[in-house]
Order: sequence, then C-alpha cells, then structure tokens
Amino acid sequence: MLRALASLFVRLDRGSPTHLQQQICAGLRAAVATGVLAPGTRLPSTRSLAAELDVSRTTIVAALLQLVAEGYLVTRVRSGTFVADEPPDAAPPAAAPRPAPPAALRLSRRGEELARTAGALDSLRPRARAFALSRPALDAFPVREWSRLVARRAARITAGQLDYGHESPELRAAIAELVSSSRGMRVGADQVMLFPGTQPALEFAFAALLDPRDRALMEDPGYGGARTALASAGAALRFAPVDAEGIVVAGAGRARLAYVTPSCQFPLGVTMSLARRHALLAWADGADACIVEDDYDCEFRHAGAPLPALAGLDASGRTVYVNSFSRTLFPALRLGYLVAPGGVVDRLRAARATREEHLPSLTQLALADFIADGHFARHVRRMKVLYRARHQALVEAARATGRLRPRPVDAGMAAVVDIDVAAVAAAAAAARRGVEAAPLHHCYAGGRAPAEALVLGFGAVPPERIRAAVDKLAAAIEEVSARP
Amino acid sequence: MLRALASLFVRLDRGSPTHLQQQICAGLRAAVATGVLAPGTRLPSTRSLAAELDVSRTTIVAALLQLVAEGYLVTRVRSGTFVADEPPDAAPPAAAPRPAPPAALRLSRRGEELARTAGALDSLRPRARAFALSRPALDAFPVREWSRLVARRAARITAGQLDYGHESPELRAAIAELVSSSRGMRVGADQVMLFPGTQPALEFAFAALLDPRDRALMEDPGYGGARTALASAGAALRFAPVDAEGIVVAGAGRARLAYVTPSCQFPLGVTMSLARRHALLAWADGADACIVEDDYDCEFRHAGAPLPALAGLDASGRTVYVNSFSRTLFPALRLGYLVAPGGVVDRLRAARATREEHLPSLTQLALADFIADGHFARHVRRMKVLYRARHQALVEAARATGRLRPRPVDAGMAAVVDIDVAAVAAAAAAARRGVEAAPLHHCYAGGRAPAEALVLGFGAVPPERIRAAVDKLAAAIEEVSARP
Repeated sequence: MLRALASLFVRLDRGSPTHLQQQICAGLRAAVATGVLAPGTRLPSTRSLAAELDVSRTTIVAALLQLVAEGYLVTRVRSGTFVADEPPDAAPPAAAPRPAPPAALRLSRRGEELARTAGALDSLRPRARAFALSRPALDAFPVREWSRLVARRAARITAGQLDYGHESPELRAAIAELVSSSRGMRVGADQVMLFPGTQPALEFAFAALLDPRDRALMEDPGYGGARTALASAGAALRFAPVDAEGIVVAGAGRARLAYVTPSCQFPLGVTMSLARRHALLAWADGADACIVEDDYDCEFRHAGAPLPALAGLDASGRTVYVNSFSRTLFPALRLGYLVAPGGVVDRLRAARATREEHLPSLTQLALADFIADGHFARHVRRMKVLYRARHQALVEAARATGRLRPRPVDAGMAAVVDIDVAAVAAAAAAARRGVEAAPLHHCYAGGRAPAEALVLGFGAVPPERIRAAVDKLAAAIEEVSARP
Repeated sequence: MLRALASLFVRLDRGSPTHLQQQICAGLRAAVATGVLAPGTRLPSTRSLAAELDVSRTTIVAALLQLVAEGYLVTRVRSGTFVADEPPDAAPPAAAPRPAPPAALRLSRRGEELARTAGALDSLRPRARAFALSRPALDAFPVREWSRLVARRAARITAGQLDYGHESPELRAAIAELVSSSRGMRVGADQVMLFPGTQPALEFAFAALLDPRDRALMEDPGYGGARTALASAGAALRFAPVDAEGIVVAGAGRARLAYVTPSCQFPLGVTMSLARRHALLAWADGADACIVEDDYDCEFRHAGAPLPALAGLDASGRTVYVNSFSRTLFPALRLGYLVAPGGVVDRLRAARATREEHLPSLTQLALADFIADGHFARHVRRMKVLYRARHQALVEAARATGRLRPRPVDAGMAAVVDIDVAAVAAAAAAARRGVEAAPLHHCYAGGRAPAEALVLGFGAVPPERIRAAVDKLAAAIEEVSARP
C-alpha cells in the first residue's frame, strides 16, 4: 500500500533548482509530520522507491540517510527502514547556522513573555501524534482529485480574482444544495454566508445576535472555542448539563441564545435525540430565544440514520446553522459557513460588511466543483465507514488493556474513556510516551467535572497504530497508579 | 488592445453547467468592477467578440443586452457599446427573489447597529473608481503567467499541504534573496517571517517590541493602519512632522520605537533622504529605540536611484523591516513579511507561535516561483514606468484645470493636490460624480492639518481615464466654491 502511496507525498519537479534528494526529504518529512506516514511504518526497499520515483538508488539512499540523521527515520539491522517512533516536529532543518550579527533590538517585556508562553504552548499543540483532537484522516483524503480540480481552476484565474476575495456565488449555491439535500433544510444560496472557518462564523453570529450581558446557554461540558467567542461577545454564560440524549433543556431558565452541538455533542460525542430537539425548539419558542446550531461531524454518525438538523425542524425561523469543511475535508481549506433564516440574512450580511475576512476565490471555486462533481458526497461516505472502523478499533484496544473504559459514543472522531487515576497526571505521563490525551474536565465549566476521564481523538490514527498507542496510554496510567 | 485582452477576463468553460452567456456576463462584470475595463471604454464589435471567444453572435448580443439592463454597459446609437460611466458595484445580480419564510430570529441592538453602520461604511469603501487609494494597476498584472504558475503548483498538491498552513521555506528564501539584492540588506531566510499582509505583521511587531504605555513615534501625517495597530498595542503615541526629506528627527524626544515609511512617506509620497536616514538611525542609537520600517512602494520611485533601506544602513541591528506584495502584485495575494535582525528572530518567532494565521501553501509556492523565475523583477520594472506615466498624466491634467495644484511626489501611486475649498466638501461633491478623493487632513494627528488638500490614488487609473476623472473633480471643486 505504501508503495502505491509514495508518489502521493513525494512529487518530484525535475525543472526545480532544488536537488531531487532535498525534494524527496521534504516530501517524506511532510508525510511524517502530518501523520500520513505513521510512526513505525516500514518503508519500501530503496530499490522499489527508486523505481517508483524514477531516480537513482544513490539518491534514495542519500535522502534516507539524511532523514535518519534528522531523526525522522530509523534503520533496523536486517529488517529495513522505519518511520521513527517519535519523529521531530514539522519544521524543516535550519539552514547552515550563521553567526547572528550583533543586534541592539530587544523584545519588550510583553514580547519576552509571549516568547516564553506562546513558545511553550506551541510545543504542546497537537501534532500528528495519536489521539490529538480534531484531526481528520488526511491519509484518506483524495488529494489527487483535489489537486486536479484546483489546477483546473488555477489555469483559468481571471483579473477579477486579483482583488480582495469575496463570497463565491457558486460555492454558496453548492452549500445550499448540500444542506437542503442532507440536513432537512430548505434554503437558497442567498441564505448562506461564507467564513474562513467555524470560529469566525461563531464570533460573527454571537456579536450580531447578542447584546453585552445577554444570557447565553451552553452545554456543560462544551466546546471551548464557542465559550471564548461568547465571552468575547460579552455574553453572561449559563450552562445546562448533557445526558445520553444531549443538552438537558428542562430547568434551563431563560436565555437570549443557546449554542448547541446536536449531531455530535462536544466532547461527549452523543447525538441529540429527536425528542430533545423538539424540546429545545419549544424552549426557544417559549423564551423567544435564538439557537446557534454547530452541526460539526453531522456526517459521521456511527449507527442509525442521520437526524434532521435543528434548522430543518425549526418552524419559527430562529435557528442559525454553522458548519465547516475542516473536518470533512481538511483543515487548511479554512472554509466554514453560516445559514440564516431568510428574513434576517440581508441584515446579517450588512452587519458583516466591514469584517476584513479574505476568502480566496480559487479555493472556493475548487470546493464548489468538488461538491458539484460528487466528490464530497463520495468522500464523506468513505470517511463515515473509516471513522466507524477506527472507533471500533479504539474501543476494542481500550477494553483489552483493562485500564480504559470507553463510554458509548454516537458520532464523530473522538471517544471519552474513564480511567482510575487523575486525568492530568495520566495525560502528562502519556505525553512523555508520545501520546496525546486531553483531560475531559478541561471541557467543563461547572463543578461536577469528572477528574478521571480522557478524550481521545482517533480520526487521524490508522487502526494498525491505534493498538500500540492505546498500549502506551495504558502504560502511562499504570505508571501513575504505581506512584506512592 | 481591448480585443487582445477580452480572453483575459472572459474564460469560457464549455464543460461547466453555467450557460456561456452567464459566464461572459460574469467575466465582464468582474472586469468592470475591478477597473480592468474602465468606465467609458468602447467594447469591440459583437462580431469580433464572437470570433475571439468562439461563441455565436447571438450569445454575445444576449450577454451585452443583459449587462446593459444591469447598468454595466451603455449603448450609443451608431457608435457602439461602452462601459457605463458609473457602473454598479461588484455584486452579481441577486437570484430571482423568493419570499423569505417567517423568521423569529432578531438581530441584537448591537447587531442592528452593526448592520446600519457597517452597511453604510461598506458603501463608502473604495471600489474601482478613479483616485481610490492603495489600488495597484491590476489591468497590467501578468495574470496568465500567474495562473500558469499557480496551476503548476496546484497540480502537485501533496498531503502535507492539507494541514494548517505554515511559512514556506522556499518563499522565505526567495524574499531573503530579494531584499538582499534590492534593498541593501544582507539577510538569511531564517530572518524572514511571513504574515497574511502588512497589517498583521505590524500588529505583531508592535505587540512584541512595545510594552503598554511605552512611547512610540510616528510621522505626522502618517499611516492610519499603523496608528490603530500602535493604539492596540497600548502605545503612548508621539508625532514628528514631515518635510521634503521625510520625518523631522530633530526635537523628536525619546521613544521606545519609531514607525516610519522611508521609501514613500504616507501620504505625502516623499522619499526620506540619505542624510535623514542616518539621522534617524543616530536618534535610535541615542534613545536605545527600535525602528519599524514600512518599506511599501520602495519599488516605485519616480526619479533617481533607489536608496538602501534603513535596515540595510543600520549597523546596530535595531530595525525591523516590513513589506508586502499587495501593491507590487495584487491585494488578494494577502502575503506580507517582516525581516528581523538575526539576534532576536528566534524569540520573535517563539512569541508568534500561537497567533492563528493561515498562510496557504499553494499561494506561497506560486509566489516563490514567480520571484525565482524573474517575473517579479520584470513586473516591478514595468510598473515603475507605468506609475511614473500615470503620475505625469495626473500632474498635467490637474494643472490644466487651474483648480488643483499637485505637490511634488518622489514615489508611489498617490499624489497630494492643494485646492481652494474645504477638502471635505470637495470630496463629497466628487463622490457624487463618481470620483474618490481623500481629504489629506484625515491623515494628520496634530493641529496643523491643511483643510484644503486631497490625496488621489492614481495607480489603478489608466492615463486615458485620468483626464476625465480630474475634470470631474475640478467640476466638484467649482461647485463647492460657487456655493454662497
């Protein structure tokens, strides 16, 4: 399989001034850094790599030796070359060190503080390690199809596309069609607003729908990105618990707005039942509130038929629907959207007029083609099967350890596991073994947060890697529980 | 000329579900909206358009009639079809109106206020009208070459490019080479940091170099974008006047940072003399201050050889250099950069680690190719000649009216003209005639702002359109001066 894949991440440009060896290194580094080539993967023989890439074996050997020296690969006597268990991060090796000229420039105290804390935070960011959250299966993305569509549009760039980018009517139409056919909504292209991702869409919606100190209701546990966006909008936050049917509406009190994740509750992964959806809409009618529906991962339900979106069930027109393509396709796409009831979309559009958000035409047009040509629907169908399989592999591996008890999950690419030690200590011990595990209580605002549970993202982890990573996590828990 | 150009802004996709007539309309609308097709331009005959685009004359006639109905084109009996003098804005015509379903959703008071003010502000944004500021000559951009380079890179998208985008080492190397060869700086690729434009680069630099309440020195008049970025960083602003040699350093007092535009002072367009550059560096040494050099339009000096950048003259390493490609190439590119002294760049990079700025790989790689293949240098050489000619045309047209007295300008794509009536009234009267003119005193912070001067951006206005637009501006001034 790897053999057929090699030319996917190493594309040689024989006209480039960059030496072929460096091009091969760059491609393999990127493949390792993004998890396309998983730790422990055995590389094909130098002979077959040379044949596939049509370069000399000398060049291949030189490239592999360089990557061994850099720590991306390891060689094992008589068995071949493998991706290192803990490869370095994505950054390419620095150019030959040169003595820095003397510089009088100093960072301010704030600058130095930023360098310390942001630098430290950055090293904690999820990389391509097992169980990092919110990382889709980039290894299964049809990159050749995508590349072909972008190249086709790129070959026809017009002068009009050189100006600041705006919403593409083609893409708005494709999205209106998509949610109408798959989410039970009936909307026109004029009701779709495009944003560079979910977060800007949420920030805009909260600013336009809430006044400072208005009450906003969130799920507890819930999504941190929405919480910070609500705080930025000056909202007075209220929290409602979540059970196996989703947000518990009874006793929620009045609020001006409710933010919910009905398809795949973040982070518990439960799907809001149909009854609970109707209860939430009735609550909103009673409170004269609006609903912001973050429908992320609606495509990836593990069992049963998809339920219609709240925005599709809502007869009063008080639901704003938000979704993005970062998880269904890939994060670098940076395209999200908001669908508003017809009666207010013109004023929402006016309210947005001076936000400086660039939406590149090329990406928008390629995405519109990708949807219109059926690639989107096909890819989502494949990914649904793939995430189901990865979830199953995680559940089985977790149970086999005896130390991780997976909770039931309805949808998505994350799973909650209960453990018997403090989640923070377990996460720290796991990180030292190269495995990410987010303590569940970080997602809670209230006081009932469970201190002994972890959230594991399995989307980007191929089944053959899941078992090894779960074993490392179990060893980390073992280590913590053995401490005096 | 137009004939050869037509296929540049109308590219027909015969495999697209969009009807050819609509594709032709979309291309022409965009060309008018971006100023590529200037108001008053005569279109070729329907016969020659049909031949060039290889479609039937019926299709061409139907497309032109539609654009006449939409207000983009006008027909004049026995002389042909022309771009309307005041075409509508860029937005495509709305889809067939559909009755909006009843919606309970309401905007908040803040949302309604945003809709009112942002909507109104948006209608004031510079469009493709004559003398809007900061608009380069998109009509002269080598869009075919650019399209070819983007398509070449797009055809080789790799899985590594699907993840969140980071700085391209190729582009950093190309920029290091560019500033080393043209700005008298000697820097390595590791000293270059990439940003999605000048504004984010300035915001970052000010936050990292200043503590709240630190003094920052700006030119007066000066660049509003830098002023708001300094204010966001909590700086205590100090202002120094500008004369024919640039910022007047003598008497500036102490400050922690100075922000300057040496190649093309904003908005006066004077170039800082070599003597003044050395004086500014000596001031910085004496005050132990740092300098943020915004080198925009360094490429477009109207007379004389280019002067080295402050960052090239600075022996102490206290200058941070900032520039972008929005004006040399096109605004939608959204790529700017910062070059820092070698000694601090690592900490600056660490301080930046958690800023969420997406830099699309495809655009970065195509730009690196564009520079490496010599297209950038060639285009800049052509644009230097073009802006000189447009400046000359503006000066001559302005003098001919007897109502506009152009001030000397050394560089760039804007000119200051003195008039005999209040600038605000003149700008309002000009806007009613479809001409933009920014009152100069809006760029002043101090009290000595001249109330009777305008700033005119001529970069995007072809010489044949300059005369007509200047005449409209003169008529607007005439109208104001005739008021009782």
